Amino acid sequence: MTNTKKFLAAAAAVVAAGTVGVVAAHAAAPAEAAGAAPKAAVATDPAGGDLNRSTHLSVAAALKAARASLEAAGKEGQKVSVAVVDRNGNTLVTLRGDGAGPQSYVSAEKKAFTAVSWNAPTSVLVGRLSQTPNLKDIPGTLFLPGGAPVQVGGAPVAAVGVAGAPSGDLDEKFARAGVAALGKAAE
Amino acid sequence: MTNTKKFLAAAAAVVAAGTVGVVAAHAAAPAEAAGAAPKAAVATDPAGGDLNRSTHLSVAAALKAARASLEAAGKEGQKVSVAVVDRNGNTLVTLRGDGAGPQSYVSAEKKAFTAVSWNAPTSVLVGRLSQTPNLKDIPGTLFLPGGAPVQVGGAPVAAVGVAGAPSGDLDEKFARAGVAALGKAAE
Amino acid sequence: MTNTKKFLAAAAAVVAAGTVGVVAAHAAAPAEAAGAAPKAAVATDPAGGDLNRSTHLSVAAALKAARASLEAAGKEGQKVSVAVVDRNGNTLVTLRGDGAGPQSYVSAEKKAFTAVSWNAPTSVLVGRLSQTPNLKDIPGTLFLPGGAPVQVGGAPVAAVGVAGAPSGDLDEKFARAGVAALGKAAE
Amino acid sequence: MTNTKKFLAAAAAVVAAGTVGVVAAHAAAPAEAAGAAPKAAVATDPAGGDLNRSTHLSVAAALKAARASLEAAGKEGQKVSVAVVDRNGNTLVTLRGDGAGPQSYVSAEKKAFTAVSWNAPTSVLVGRLSQTPNLKDIPGTLFLPGGAPVQVGGAPVAAVGVAGAPSGDLDEKFARAGVAALGKAAE
Amino acid sequence: MTNTKKFLAAAAAVVAAGTVGVVAAHAAAPAEAAGAAPKAAVATDPAGGDLNRSTHLSVAAALKAARASLEAAGKEGQKVSVAVVDRNGNTLVTLRGDGAGPQSYVSAEKKAFTAVSWNAPTSVLVGRLSQTPNLKDIPGTLFLPGGAPVQVGGAPVAAVGVAGAPSGDLDEKFARAGVAALGKAAE
Amino acid sequence: MTNTKKFLAAAAAVVAAGTVGVVAAHAAAPAEAAGAAPKAAVATDPAGGDLNRSTHLSVAAALKAARASLEAAGKEGQKVSVAVVDRNGNTLVTLRGDGAGPQSYVSAEKKAFTAVSWNAPTSVLVGRLSQTPNLKDIPGTLFLPGGAPVQVGGAPVAAVGVAGAPSGDLDEKFARAGVAALGKAAE
Amino acid sequence: MTNTKKFLAAAAAVVAAGTVGVVAAHAAAPAEAAGAAPKAAVATDPAGGDLNRSTHLSVAAALKAARASLEAAGKEGQKVSVAVVDRNGNTLVTLRGDGAGPQSYVSAEKKAFTAVSWNAPTSVLVGRLSQTPNLKDIPGTLFLPGGAPVQVGGAPVAAVGVAGAPSGDLDEKFARAGVAALGKAAE
Amino acid sequence: MTNTKKFLAAAAAVVAAGTVGVVAAHAAAPAEAAGAAPKAAVATDPAGGDLNRSTHLSVAAALKAARASLEAAGKEGQKVSVAVVDRNGNTLVTLRGDGAGPQSYVSAEKKAFTAVSWNAPTSVLVGRLSQTPNLKDIPGTLFLPGGAPVQVGGAPVAAVGVAGAPSGDLDEKFARAGVAALGKAAE
Repeated sequence: MTNTKKFLAAAAAVVAAGTVGVVAAHAAAPAEAAGAAPKAAVATDPAGGDLNRSTHLSVAAALKAARASLEAAGKEGQKVSVAVVDRNGNTLVTLRGDGAGPQSYVSAEKKAFTAVSWNAPTSVLVGRLSQTPNLKDIPGTLFLPGGAPVQVGGAPVAAVGVAGAPSGDLDEKFARAGVAALGKAAE
Repeated sequence: MTNTKKFLAAAAAVVAAGTVGVVAAHAAAPAEAAGAAPKAAVATDPAGGDLNRSTHLSVAAALKAARASLEAAGKEGQKVSVAVVDRNGNTLVTLRGDGAGPQSYVSAEKKAFTAVSWNAPTSVLVGRLSQTPNLKDIPGTLFLPGGAPVQVGGAPVAAVGVAGAPSGDLDEKFARAGVAALGKAAE
Repeated sequence: MTNTKKFLAAAAAVVAAGTVGVVAAHAAAPAEAAGAAPKAAVATDPAGGDLNRSTHLSVAAALKAARASLEAAGKEGQKVSVAVVDRNGNTLVTLRGDGAGPQSYVSAEKKAFTAVSWNAPTSVLVGRLSQTPNLKDIPGTLFLPGGAPVQVGGAPVAAVGVAGAPSGDLDEKFARAGVAALGKAAE
Repeated sequence: MTNTKKFLAAAAAVVAAGTVGVVAAHAAAPAEAAGAAPKAAVATDPAGGDLNRSTHLSVAAALKAARASLEAAGKEGQKVSVAVVDRNGNTLVTLRGDGAGPQSYVSAEKKAFTAVSWNAPTSVLVGRLSQTPNLKDIPGTLFLPGGAPVQVGGAPVAAVGVAGAPSGDLDEKFARAGVAALGKAAE
Repeated sequence: MTNTKKFLAAAAAVVAAGTVGVVAAHAAAPAEAAGAAPKAAVATDPAGGDLNRSTHLSVAAALKAARASLEAAGKEGQKVSVAVVDRNGNTLVTLRGDGAGPQSYVSAEKKAFTAVSWNAPTSVLVGRLSQTPNLKDIPGTLFLPGGAPVQVGGAPVAAVGVAGAPSGDLDEKFARAGVAALGKAAE
Repeated sequence: MTNTKKFLAAAAAVVAAGTVGVVAAHAAAPAEAAGAAPKAAVATDPAGGDLNRSTHLSVAAALKAARASLEAAGKEGQKVSVAVVDRNGNTLVTLRGDGAGPQSYVSAEKKAFTAVSWNAPTSVLVGRLSQTPNLKDIPGTLFLPGGAPVQVGGAPVAAVGVAGAPSGDLDEKFARAGVAALGKAAE
Repeated sequence: MTNTKKFLAAAAAVVAAGTVGVVAAHAAAPAEAAGAAPKAAVATDPAGGDLNRSTHLSVAAALKAARASLEAAGKEGQKVSVAVVDRNGNTLVTLRGDGAGPQSYVSAEKKAFTAVSWNAPTSVLVGRLSQTPNLKDIPGTLFLPGGAPVQVGGAPVAAVGVAGAPSGDLDEKFARAGVAALGKAAE
Repeated sequence: MTNTKKFLAAAAAVVAAGTVGVVAAHAAAPAEAAGAAPKAAVATDPAGGDLNRSTHLSVAAALKAARASLEAAGKEGQKVSVAVVDRNGNTLVTLRGDGAGPQSYVSAEKKAFTAVSWNAPTSVLVGRLSQTPNLKDIPGTLFLPGGAPVQVGGAPVAAVGVAGAPSGDLDEKFARAGVAALGKAAE
């Protein structure tokens, strides 16, 4: 049995188990390219560690979190923007809230990026600057409260960022509300 | 049994199967933040589709491919740069080859990005421009031969890009050599 | 009666009419700045044309459209990203679909930007390039099918962009599905 | 009566009231696209909150403010640049004053952006940095005196930014002169 | 008589002639820096060609042109944005017209930049692409009708760019109206 | 006598005076565009202040200064990069010195930009940050010693920036050497 | 005989062979351009100092260093990214480590850039900010421990940057491990 | 004995002297860092190919070429900008010619970058686009005549780019004049 077959069988087994949907990287092979696609699929070598697997939020889950954050802010009459980024820092969802300031959209993304980078709420990360002030010079980061990581088994898989409320504490409260929504049943 | 427990159990089962190492998103929780980390880990809801899992190249595998591309070029006396990007378009490995032209470094990255975006070698994708010429205006793309996707079960998980040889056909030959190296035993 | 009073009265009248909620630009005046805020609110001069009023999608509506696009794609097994931008080209909502190619996220935004700029589906706008090919050099634009304007009284107020399906026609079909959802009752 | 009709009727009523001109989002539908434009205008659902309306400065008003700022500076022999941005942070007007330093043009835009983001003069906002120093890391902002918001009913609808005078206090004095001009009759 | 004195005397003579005001580069020397400023002003050497003098539009003139363009468009019911750039490509004035599409603001700047770069209307420059198509890859340029140079003695000193009308011919008509306004008395 | 004629006559007079060469904005009017060029040259209105004139360094002078800075550094065995920018912040000359660190090239440009913006050596400007720390957030600036303005009659017309020496004081010594060279005869 | 001496001897041998060991810049002269290439190769003038020669890491060496850094981190269970840049600040090699935070990739590049710019470990350079805080505003730099220069004869020829570990001290330990690997035999 | 031969002999002599003429990368080791610098200089491994050596233009030579290009243009009354880039694409020298169009400065840099990337004059490279049109999408390139490579032994070590003349042929004539100046004695 080749390594490739072994991998595919294993993957099939995972799917068969029905617990986690292997959705991710299945790009549509457009019809017109099908004939030209490289015949030899990669012969993977699991034993050699060629492949990793990682856990992500589905877009539906990311959206559930973002909406929960926006609603939490709305209940308190606050106008905010919300962003959800994945572990690689790629943005999954953005929502520019009605009447939120123009600075809030990018701020929300950067807070989420910061939270997922260090796997901690940005309110905590702000505290680290007293010892290492130049952390905040890393591109993509923003050290203001309002970012909260989404964790699976303690590891970060995503983060929610909120910006636009009059204080960072409020922003972060709404971000946490978004994270908290992930365990609940879908609406 | 809570949803969270169900998910963790399922994840454990996957790992127990021993076929794929769950490496990915395990960020170090820095000591000084531990106390402040949000107590409540995300209560996932697998039934609701909150989590996806995806397959990636390990950095070791990406490097194996990149080196194989560089060596294939070297055997023919060609000076090239090489890049490997993952399914999300994030660059995993770059190698600026000795004496390669300055344009080759970014070209290699963009060819890889293009190949993984449409799951086809860039030599094939160039052909699509005759029907849809503006595809090439999409940011991050470069429609020149030299990019080749890495596939698992037909789906793209990464791509190798090569640039700097006198012709795109040569570049793509070397890129394919990189992909082909993935099924072989590690050096 | 001063001009300012006249404007405020008129604004009140509009709200009282109850047909359109004056939500928009109500930024929270943070407590700590209250004392220092400029006392004299702008004394507007409606007769002089100092103020315009414009119609926008609420974020809830923009999200409704984006989700409808994503669901339409999902029903056909297509993996796409979706964006909604307003009349000024600012992004309101983004959704990076599960398994969508990395090029799709920015493409969706740019298609929506293009559609709202010229108030036409991007499939139509592509046709204009035969006469004016350099339109596609305008920053922010992307001339590929998949963008559809949201119109009120024939004027563009927003646009939906979709990218990632194997053809632009499919992308645009899903974008139109998003627009069509706007007339329906909220879920 | 359909929702669409209801909205259009309501809009007509607003216009008929004659107090606010619905100018904004009326893009010209170019002749060559007219036939291809989507037949079905969006069927709006006002009850569902699909639409918001917001108040903006007309370009004539923005220009009136910018000129007033420039003239106020000129009277004191100061060389400055001026910018007016709207509530969404988009620049409406810029004026690069004769002999103003090259740094002044972008500074004026960023001061205006900052003022409209937090609905306060930037001289006030500078004070907030003592408590939240990283606010100034938000992209687009500049925490120097010289930005002043334009308010309608207390909410920000625009802001004027001035830069280039020897002190920020002077810059802000001129910015306020621009805001103050908005209540006066057009020249 | 030193070279410096000779230059200053010459400059004085020019001013005394009263025909052109030497406004330009007179930056305010802030008080606190006065003591530290380099004592020795540059001892110029006119014979050696150290100094050039160039002619520019005043901001007042640039604004006059921009307003004339905007008004010309308004008379025909067209919604456009306008920009004026100087000979060095620096933007002097921008006006985002009411209801103009979001793409128009940057387009207007780039058309003006293009017109001043080659001292010709952009409608003429478009024609040159048939022979040299890659001119349009030069950063900052946009080869669409709508840019018109402002000339003094045949040399370009500025340009007006207009964008947003349904056709480039209309845009350029309005741009020319802006240029034409420069010879008229100030309003 | 029309305004246009009056201006051209005046301009001719200036040139006839032979003291300053009107070099600047004389762009070549390419042959193929000559016929299409707008017939009506701008009818200027000097009385209305349509035109300004400003003084610039010739490229020969800028180069003389840059070389003097580089040589001054070389005499002390220091490896630096040098830049000269004009009053508008546009770079006139750059020299990447042999063996200078990669950070020095952009640093030199930014120091020169900073010096010309506030018409003072950057060593002086650094001191201003104690009162206005956020000046350094203005795009294009760098508050490190090594920039020195070139003044004519006290007004800044250009600046020299030097970077790469072990201390900013050395950098600025070399920058001043460049400025000092401007009064000397050409080599 | 030390390794250094061996290198010098080897280099001499290459030169003695009369070929000049033109390794680096040997770009392939594509066939179709051969005829049109400028006939007259540059006639150099050694007395005039037209040519310099510099020492660089080969890509193989840069890769050896990068891998050593990654392995050193792996042995301690740390997830990091690694970059190697040359003396000109151009990136030679990047490795995005499995599970490393998204901020680590760019951070590693910038740390390496910083180390090679001032020829010192970034942990040392951080200390200099107490005297010259604005050094950190130079584009491309990042003042966090984790960058280490590669020196030949005391001069910097490259640098290794590492980011992603819980502390900068760890990052720099791994960076130094990469540098140390350069003297060892290839694997 | 040709100049080239003289150079090779001289280079050999330098190496024979055993000093290696390590000119390039000699960064100043600032005093305060001396103690902390890594003690162990890199122990190179020539057998392993850790080090390469490459040939570059000195800044003096690059400047000589740039000036020759500018003067050649001046003799024909053409206003141009000039740039010299090294083999790695880094800019060594720029000269913004008096009265040159604003587009010329960046164009000159990009033409030089293009010429050095493929080791051919850009007038030749333009021709390749007929077969591979998307080469021109590679970042940093510009396919217009006006760039000419500087070769040593047939390999590119730098390139000169010129822009601003009415035709690309003229630009390239001036660029070649710059290259030709390299074999002549210094002025």
